[in-house]
Amino acid sequence: MGGFSREHFERLINPRSIVIVGASNRTGPGSYNLMENLIREGIDKVIYPVNLSADQVLGHQAYKRVRDIPEPADLAIIMVPRTAVPEAVADCVEKGIKTVLVISQGFADADQVGSELQNQLVELTRGTDTRIVGPNTIGIANSFDYFHTSFQRFDLEPKRNALVCQSGMFVLASGHFTTGLGLGIDIGNAAEVDFTDLLPHLAADDRIDVINLHMEGLADGAEFVRLAAQITPNKPIVAYKVGQSEEGARAAASHSGALSSEDHVVSAAFDKGGVLRVRDLDEMTELNKALLTYPKINGKRFAVVTISGGGGITVVDALSQHGLEIATPSEAVMAEIQTRNPPWMPVGNPVDTWMAVLKQGLAGANLDILNLLLQDANVDGAVVLLNAYRSTGYESLRELVDGIVATQQRFPDKPIALWAFGMNRHEVIEEAEKSGVVAGFGSPESAARALAGLYRYHHEIKGRTLAAAPELDDVDTGGAAAILQRAAADEVEVLGTQALEILESYGINTARAVLAADEQELLEIGAALGYPLVMKIASEQIVHKSDVGGVRLNIADPEELVESFREMCGGIQARFKDAVIDGVHLQRQHSEGVETIIGASRHAGFGPIIVFGLGGIFTEILKDVSFAMAPVSRSEAETMISRLRARAVLAGARGGDAVDTDAIVDAIVRVSTLLMDFPQITELDINPFTVQGSTGIALDARAILERP
Amino acid sequence: MGGFSREHFERLINPRSIVIVGASNRTGPGSYNLMENLIREGIDKVIYPVNLSADQVLGHQAYKRVRDIPEPADLAIIMVPRTAVPEAVADCVEKGIKTVLVISQGFADADQVGSELQNQLVELTRGTDTRIVGPNTIGIANSFDYFHTSFQRFDLEPKRNALVCQSGMFVLASGHFTTGLGLGIDIGNAAEVDFTDLLPHLAADDRIDVINLHMEGLADGAEFVRLAAQITPNKPIVAYKVGQSEEGARAAASHSGALSSEDHVVSAAFDKGGVLRVRDLDEMTELNKALLTYPKINGKRFAVVTISGGGGITVVDALSQHGLEIATPSEAVMAEIQTRNPPWMPVGNPVDTWMAVLKQGLAGANLDILNLLLQDANVDGAVVLLNAYRSTGYESLRELVDGIVATQQRFPDKPIALWAFGMNRHEVIEEAEKSGVVAGFGSPESAARALAGLYRYHHEIKGRTLAAAPELDDVDTGGAAAILQRAAADEVEVLGTQALEILESYGINTARAVLAADEQELLEIGAALGYPLVMKIASEQIVHKSDVGGVRLNIADPEELVESFREMCGGIQARFKDAVIDGVHLQRQHSEGVETIIGASRHAGFGPIIVFGLGGIFTEILKDVSFAMAPVSRSEAETMISRLRARAVLAGARGGDAVDTDAIVDAIVRVSTLLMDFPQITELDINPFTVQGSTGIALDARAILERP
Repeated sequence: MGGFSREHFERLINPRSIVIVGASNRTGPGSYNLMENLIREGIDKVIYPVNLSADQVLGHQAYKRVRDIPEPADLAIIMVPRTAVPEAVADCVEKGIKTVLVISQGFADADQVGSELQNQLVELTRGTDTRIVGPNTIGIANSFDYFHTSFQRFDLEPKRNALVCQSGMFVLASGHFTTGLGLGIDIGNAAEVDFTDLLPHLAADDRIDVINLHMEGLADGAEFVRLAAQITPNKPIVAYKVGQSEEGARAAASHSGALSSEDHVVSAAFDKGGVLRVRDLDEMTELNKALLTYPKINGKRFAVVTISGGGGITVVDALSQHGLEIATPSEAVMAEIQTRNPPWMPVGNPVDTWMAVLKQGLAGANLDILNLLLQDANVDGAVVLLNAYRSTGYESLRELVDGIVATQQRFPDKPIALWAFGMNRHEVIEEAEKSGVVAGFGSPESAARALAGLYRYHHEIKGRTLAAAPELDDVDTGGAAAILQRAAADEVEVLGTQALEILESYGINTARAVLAADEQELLEIGAALGYPLVMKIASEQIVHKSDVGGVRLNIADPEELVESFREMCGGIQARFKDAVIDGVHLQRQHSEGVETIIGASRHAGFGPIIVFGLGGIFTEILKDVSFAMAPVSRSEAETMISRLRARAVLAGARGGDAVDTDAIVDAIVRVSTLLMDFPQITELDINPFTVQGSTGIALDARAILERP
Repeated sequence: MGGFSREHFERLINPRSIVIVGASNRTGPGSYNLMENLIREGIDKVIYPVNLSADQVLGHQAYKRVRDIPEPADLAIIMVPRTAVPEAVADCVEKGIKTVLVISQGFADADQVGSELQNQLVELTRGTDTRIVGPNTIGIANSFDYFHTSFQRFDLEPKRNALVCQSGMFVLASGHFTTGLGLGIDIGNAAEVDFTDLLPHLAADDRIDVINLHMEGLADGAEFVRLAAQITPNKPIVAYKVGQSEEGARAAASHSGALSSEDHVVSAAFDKGGVLRVRDLDEMTELNKALLTYPKINGKRFAVVTISGGGGITVVDALSQHGLEIATPSEAVMAEIQTRNPPWMPVGNPVDTWMAVLKQGLAGANLDILNLLLQDANVDGAVVLLNAYRSTGYESLRELVDGIVATQQRFPDKPIALWAFGMNRHEVIEEAEKSGVVAGFGSPESAARALAGLYRYHHEIKGRTLAAAPELDDVDTGGAAAILQRAAADEVEVLGTQALEILESYGINTARAVLAADEQELLEIGAALGYPLVMKIASEQIVHKSDVGGVRLNIADPEELVESFREMCGGIQARFKDAVIDGVHLQRQHSEGVETIIGASRHAGFGPIIVFGLGGIFTEILKDVSFAMAPVSRSEAETMISRLRARAVLAGARGGDAVDTDAIVDAIVRVSTLLMDFPQITELDINPFTVQGSTGIALDARAILERP
C-alpha cells in the first residue's frame, strides 16, 4: 500500500469533497478562517465541517467526529491544536480518507514533544492507504483548477509552473518568487509526503513546464537524484536550497568527510540530477521568467541594442560576467546599420541607437536595428535597453515595447531580453511581459544571469542522457569482502594497510610491501603489484639494507626481477653467512609525480560522495576540491578534474611533466564502485594518490567502517 | 589660471545667465529642444539664444555670434554640429565666458577626426579662464536650485547626494540608480573638466551627503586618490567603474605588469582612497539607500523579525554571505518574547512572530517584538520581513510600516531594513521610504549587501587617518641613481644583476655574488651583504671548486669569514701552485623557506602599483596575488599579505615553518619607496623573494626601464 499514487495526487490538489477538522464559526479579521475563505472565494467543493461543539459551521451542517460524515471525503484538512491531531488522523484512516493535510503547527518544527507527536502521525498511517501532507503547512494553491487551502484571500497568477516548498510564504508570494504559479504544494515538515513523492506527478502533468523546489532539507537524496535525472532532460527543475550558510559544520573522521559539507553534497546531487540550483530568490524569479518565456536558445552570442553608450557597457560587463558572449554581427549587417548613423559615428556591438533615434524616433530606430541584428546568423539573441522614466513620454516607449513583442514573434528562437531602467521600470516590465513572449529585468546582471541559466538548461541538461558508471570486470569483490569481514569480526573501525589491500582488490595500484619468499611467489607478487618495482632484502639481521646492496629500484620486468632476486639474496648470504634471509619485500615503485587526494564519504540519504583534489595546500588551505555523487561515470570524473582551480598543475604547470588524467579518472571510478559495493565503508581517504605520466599509485589510505 | 574654481562650479551648476549656441525654433516631439524645455519647465534664467539665421528664437532675441551678446554669460551651452564647435568655443573664450558645456557629440566618442577636434577644444582654452565640460554630455541636473540642461522633461527627486557620470542615462535615470538626485553632472568625454576637478566642490557642498561616480575611465588616478582619501573619512564616495570585463588585456614586459589588469589598478586606487566600489547598478542603488537613510550603525549583529520561518532562513543565509552576524539577544529579552509564543514553540533569532500574530495581529505582534529586540544591547539592527501581497489587507500592513518608522525614530542608531516580498513589494517599499528613516529592499541579499556596505563605511572608512608610508633613513638613493644613470647612458632597458644591486641599495637582502680580493674588502663586503655567507674561490684555473675545497657554506660571522678566507686561498694556492687566485666571491646564503613574488608596475595616471603573491603556481595559475597603490604603508603591506587566499602557507601550513611576515612587509615598503623615487623604473619583479624565519632575500630580480 506504499507510495503516493496518481489518485492521492489528484485528491490532494483538486478534491471533490473536503472534511475540515477544526472548522470554526469565528470570522472576521485575524480569525484566518480557512472554511470562511473557501466559501467567500466561491471555491465549489462539498465541505464537511467537523466541530465538537457546534451543530452548524458557517451555514453548513457540522459533524462531531470524522467518522460521522456521510462519505469518505477526498481530502481531510486538519487544523486543531497539535495534541488533538493524532486522534483526527486516526479517524481519517478509519474512515478511509486517502489524503490528509495537517495545517496545525508545533511538531518537528517546535519541541521534542512535537517531534514525538509527528512520529505518532506517521505510525498511524503505516500500512494504510492514507497519506499525510504536512504538518505545519499552508497546503495547496492550484490555479489550474482554482482550488487553494490558504486561510486568506489569495491572488493566484496562473503560470505553467509548479512549486513544492516547505514554507507557506513561498506559495503566498509566488506571484513574486516564481512570477505567478500554476500549482503550489507546501509540504511543511514533510513528515510523510516528500519531494520525491510529488516529482513524478508534476513531471507527468502537461500543464507544468517548470518545476520549482524550495528545500529546507532533503531526506532521500539518492531517490531524488534518480527521479530528477529522469525528469530534467524534458522539464527543468529549479531548486532553491536554504541553509547555505551552515557549511562545514559536519564532524567527520576523515579528510574527505570533513571536506564535504552538506552544501557540497546538495550541489553534487543537483549536478547529477540536472537540477538548476539557484542561490537566491531573485535568481529563482529570473530563471522562471526565462524558462517560461523563451522556448529556445541556439547559442550565447548576444547583440546589445541601446540608446545609451554608457548603458551598453554595463550590459557587456554583465553578459561576460555570466559567461555569455557579445555577438560579432556580419559586416553586411553592420554596414547596413552604419547607414542609420552619421558617417563619423562608427557602429559596433553594443549598437548605440541614439543617432538613429534623432532621425527615426525611439521606436523606429530601435526596432529597425533590432530586426537587422536578429536576421543575422551570428546573433543568437538580444538585450534591449528601455529608458523607463516618465520624461520619455510613454507613447513612444509603448510603441517600442509593442514592436519588440512583434519582433520576438518573428524570431521565436532568439530571446530578446529587456533591461528597463528608471523609476517606471516596474510598469514597463509588467506591460512588456503581458505578451508572454518577452521578459523584462531590472538590471543587466539579472537579465544576463537569467539568459545564462536558460542557455545552461538548453545546452547542458535538456535532452541529455547520463553516462552510466562503467561495469568493472577486473575487480576482486570477494577479496575486498573478506578483508572487511575480518575487520568487522575483529570490531576494527579504521583500516590502514588493509585499506590499501582493498584498493588493490579494486584494481588500484598501491605502494603496499609484500614478502616474496621464493622465485615463484616473487613472480606472482610482481605480476600482482605491477612494474616498476622496488625490492628490499627481508632479513632480521640486515639493518642498513642499502649499504649492503639490499635495495634495488626500478625493476622493470620479470627477467630483471628474478635476476635481482638471485643477485641480492645470493650476494648478501655470501657476505653474511649467519643472516637468516626470509626473502625480499616487493613494493610498487613510488612514483614522483603530482600528489592528489581521492576520497569518499557517505551521507545519509545520498550515499557516497566522491571527492577529488590536489595534495597539501590545495586541499587543506585553498579547499580546491570537487565532488560527485556515486556512482561516478568516467565523464563525471573528468568533470571533477576540470573543476579544480589548480587543474593546470596536472598539465605540468608547475614545471613538472603533464600527467595523464586517465589514471585519476580510473581511480575515481574504482573508488566510487567500491563505495557502492560496500555500504559498511563510511569514509575513505587515498592521500596521497600520486600520479606520474600514465600511472597513479595510492601511497597511503585510510578507511572508516561503520560501527559493528 | 589653471584649475576649476568654486566660481566655475557655481556658474556651471546654477548660472544666472546662459548662452545657447545652436538654439533652434524647431519644436515638438523628436526635436529635443533644450531651450524650449528650459522655458516650458519655467527655469528662470536669462537666456541668450545664438542662431546664425533667425532673429528670434522661441520669442527671445537671437544673436548671430556669441560676441554679440550684451554680457559674458555665466554658462555657455553649445549644441551645434561638431565641426562648428571650435569656433563657438573660441567665441566663448574671447567673450570671457568661464564655463562652457559642450553637448554636441562626435568627438573622442566617435572617430579620429573627432579626437582631433576634441584636442582643438582643449587647446583653445589653454591659458585662459574658460573651462569646458564635455563634449558628448547631457550636462547638469541640479535639484537643489532647480536647474537642468536635459533636452526633455525631467523628474528630479531631490536627495542629499551627487552624481558625476560619463553617460546621460545615469542622470536621467537617477531616480532609479541613486534613488533620487541632488546634483548630477555628466562630464561626457571629460576633455577638460574631470572627476578630480569636481570632487573638492562636491565635498565642500553641505547639501551633499553621498557622492556617486560613474566612471568609464580615470585620467589622473593619483590625484583622484589623494582627493578621495581626504574626502571619504567625512563623506562617502560610491564608485561604479564600468569595463570590468576587459581584464588582463594589458601587454607587459614583467610578471607584475602582466598581473595587474586595469581593474586591479582601479581597485587598488579605490582601496587607498577609501572609495566604496560597487560592482553593479543595483548595488549603487542599495548603497545610496543605506547611506542616505541610516545615520549610524554600531555593529553588525542583526535580529531578524519574520512572520515566516522559511523567510527567516533566507535572511540568515544572506546576512552571513555578506559578513554580517545573527545577533544573540540576551536571555531576558528572549524569555520576554517567549511569553508571546505558546510554550511549545521555542524562540530564537530569527524570531518567528507568526504565533504572536495570531494573538496580537500583524502590526501588534511584530512591533512589540521588534521593540523588545532593539532595546537589547546585543542587537545592532534588524531586518523585518513584510508580506506584501494584496491578500494581507493593506490596513494591517500600513499599520505595521508606520509602527516600524516610529520604532526607527526611537532607535536611530540601529538600522531597521525591510525586506518586502510579494507582488506589491514596490508599493510597500515606496510607502515605507517616504518616511526617510527606513529603507526597503526587494530581496534579503540586497538588504544584506546594503547593510554590509553601510557597516564597512562607518567602521573601516569614516574618520580614518591613512598611515603614511614610512620614511626610510637607511636607503642609498645615490647608489641606485648611479646604476640607473649608467643604464640610461648605455640605453639598457632591462636590468638583471643590477636590479639586485639597486634593491641592495634600498636595504633589501639579495643573493648577488661580490668579489673580495683581500681581507679588508672581505670584511666590508661581508658586513654589506650580511651573514650567513657563502664563499667561493675566484680563480680562472679552478673549475670544480667544491672538489678542491673552494666552496664554504654558512659562514656565520667575521671571525669565521677571515679564517675561511685564509684556509681556502692558502690551501688551494699550496696545492695549485700556478693558479691565479683573484680572491673569493661572497654571496648571501640562499635561504630555504617560502618563495614569494614582490613586484611593481607603473600605470599611467596612477603611478606604481605594488603586487605581492606566493611563488609558482599560486601566482601563475591561481592568480592569488594582491595589489596596493604606492606609496605603501606598513599596514597596507600587511593588508596585502592578509588578502592572499593561501596566506596560511606563510603561517607554515605546508608543514614548513611559519615565516615572519615583517620581512615581507619591509621589502614591500622598500620596493614601493624605490618606485616612488625613480619614475624611470616602469616595472619590477623580485622573483623569488624567499623568506625564512625573519629574513627574506631576493634571489633574482628584473627591472624594466623606460625607453631612453
